[in-house]
Amino acid sequence: MRGGIDLGGTKIQAVVVDDEHTVRGEARVPTPTTGGPPDVAASMADALQQAAQAADVEPGDLEGVGVGSPGEIDPGAGTVTSARNLPDWEGTFALGDELSGALHTRVALGNDVQVATDAEALLGAGRPFPSLLGVFWGTGVGGGIVLEGKPWTGRGAGGEIGHVVVKRNGARCTCGRKGCMEAYAGRGSMELRARGRHKRGTKTDLFQIMRDRGRTRLTSGVWARALDRGDDLAIELIDDAVEALGAGVASVQNVLDVEAIVIGGGLGIRLGEPYARRILDAMMPHLFNDDDPPVVEVAALGDLGGAIGAALLVANSHQRPVSVSL
Amino acid sequence: MRGGIDLGGTKIQAVVVDDEHTVRGEARVPTPTTGGPPDVAASMADALQQAAQAADVEPGDLEGVGVGSPGEIDPGAGTVTSARNLPDWEGTFALGDELSGALHTRVALGNDVQVATDAEALLGAGRPFPSLLGVFWGTGVGGGIVLEGKPWTGRGAGGEIGHVVVKRNGARCTCGRKGCMEAYAGRGSMELRARGRHKRGTKTDLFQIMRDRGRTRLTSGVWARALDRGDDLAIELIDDAVEALGAGVASVQNVLDVEAIVIGGGLGIRLGEPYARRILDAMMPHLFNDDDPPVVEVAALGDLGGAIGAALLVANSHQRPVSVSL
Repeated sequence: MRGGIDLGGTKIQAVVVDDEHTVRGEARVPTPTTGGPPDVAASMADALQQAAQAADVEPGDLEGVGVGSPGEIDPGAGTVTSARNLPDWEGTFALGDELSGALHTRVALGNDVQVATDAEALLGAGRPFPSLLGVFWGTGVGGGIVLEGKPWTGRGAGGEIGHVVVKRNGARCTCGRKGCMEAYAGRGSMELRARGRHKRGTKTDLFQIMRDRGRTRLTSGVWARALDRGDDLAIELIDDAVEALGAGVASVQNVLDVEAIVIGGGLGIRLGEPYARRILDAMMPHLFNDDDPPVVEVAALGDLGGAIGAALLVANSHQRPVSVSL
Repeated sequence: MRGGIDLGGTKIQAVVVDDEHTVRGEARVPTPTTGGPPDVAASMADALQQAAQAADVEPGDLEGVGVGSPGEIDPGAGTVTSARNLPDWEGTFALGDELSGALHTRVALGNDVQVATDAEALLGAGRPFPSLLGVFWGTGVGGGIVLEGKPWTGRGAGGEIGHVVVKRNGARCTCGRKGCMEAYAGRGSMELRARGRHKRGTKTDLFQIMRDRGRTRLTSGVWARALDRGDDLAIELIDDAVEALGAGVASVQNVLDVEAIVIGGGLGIRLGEPYARRILDAMMPHLFNDDDPPVVEVAALGDLGGAIGAALLVANSHQRPVSVSL
């Protein structure tokens, strides 16, 4: 059995899977909003221990634990640098060693979005397609690319679809730049905008729903509930996010021309199929090859995809399903 | 010896090259602005015949002639469909057979932008780099992608960087869509805008320079001359084009993260190194990986690159230089 941990801006998801990639135990804990990398690492170890307990195995008996992390990953050194959306994670932290010490097994690190894309390509919605783009619509908007069965990450920093410009001199993104797709579609930016509008007097139930659920942030569930209730501000901001995703993802498709686009991430999974269709509709006016649009599907592994993909990092070759390739 | 023809919206460039890819003869004729595909094909044959004469060879004695064409290419069938920027070329035309009949040698068709990118990757500015993006700034804005030494065209329609959205609900592009990079940076769109502004009373020397040169369009040479003279409208529209290229090319780089960007095309070649630097400067605010920007260079094969790349389509394997690959 193997472990996988998906380190997100809002939550840490851990799984323990068997040789057939079936989830035997899972656990989820909130990502600490204060403290620093050591606190985050402690919560990650805690989540994995809970998942191992559910699977009735000791962490030390796992073949290894894979981690999908934001930020710059050095898989060889086992370090993570400048992980945005995580508390005080500006410098370089030896996450691999820290977790390995806590869990008594080997730890492999990978990029969160890329491992989730690999999981969808190998085991999920992307299985029929040689080439695909994973769109992870959550706190930010991440992208993972698989071309003819192989991940494409460029010099290591590819796939940053959230920072495709959809409006020159447009809204300020949480990354500091202007007009990025994420500035309109990232849940982080959407929350900042909702707070600003609410403060300036726009009526909305978003923050009441948040408090009723004991949350301090506008989670995907809060957005979904507000949409269900017909909250005007939620509808407006989500509509704007869908339009931005349409323009940005169509731009990427005009460049890559892949067979399929798999929509994942907290909001992507939570809002599901109807919104995948809406994103495709919003892409159409911008698709150059609009006679032959890509298939757009919701990530089939749901919100466990990132953790299942992380576990692939420690899979032996005989456990790794044959990659689709031409 | 082999022939190559680059079919552009403004001009048809033909070359005859030897086994070392050295140009032994070349000729250029204007692209017909009226008539239809047969007239264009006749001008192409004429250009190639002139190039062959300069190289002291009969077209029929060439190993073959490669053609880089806009539109949808079916290399097997030898057909070109819906070639935008060419007169009345909406349907499918058997360009391969037509040229083969006129020139008495075999003809191979390829995408204009991709063959020019391949030429730069194999023989030009891209030689040191395993992965690169070719940006062809001319009548439109075309893109060619080479990833680890191999062309990437997706399902056949990839590389359409001109139709990356840089402004949601922005300017109308000649493709009919809104906010495309090409709507700001394509010479076709720039000319439409200049004509509109001139008609509404904005002072500019652009059209006087055009007439003085016996042109009916704002060619790259006309734009360059107007910039040299400090023409305010030319400066404004070129500045806007550079900003649009900065945002659009940076967006593509955020996705692909390649080592190098090679700037070609009529305007790219004509405006040269200073403008390649300006495009990089305009990319910087939008580059996610701004610690490590790509190298940005002007196409080394100049405006013969497309024709030299087209000739590669009929090169035997022993004439094809070893492709860079990791």
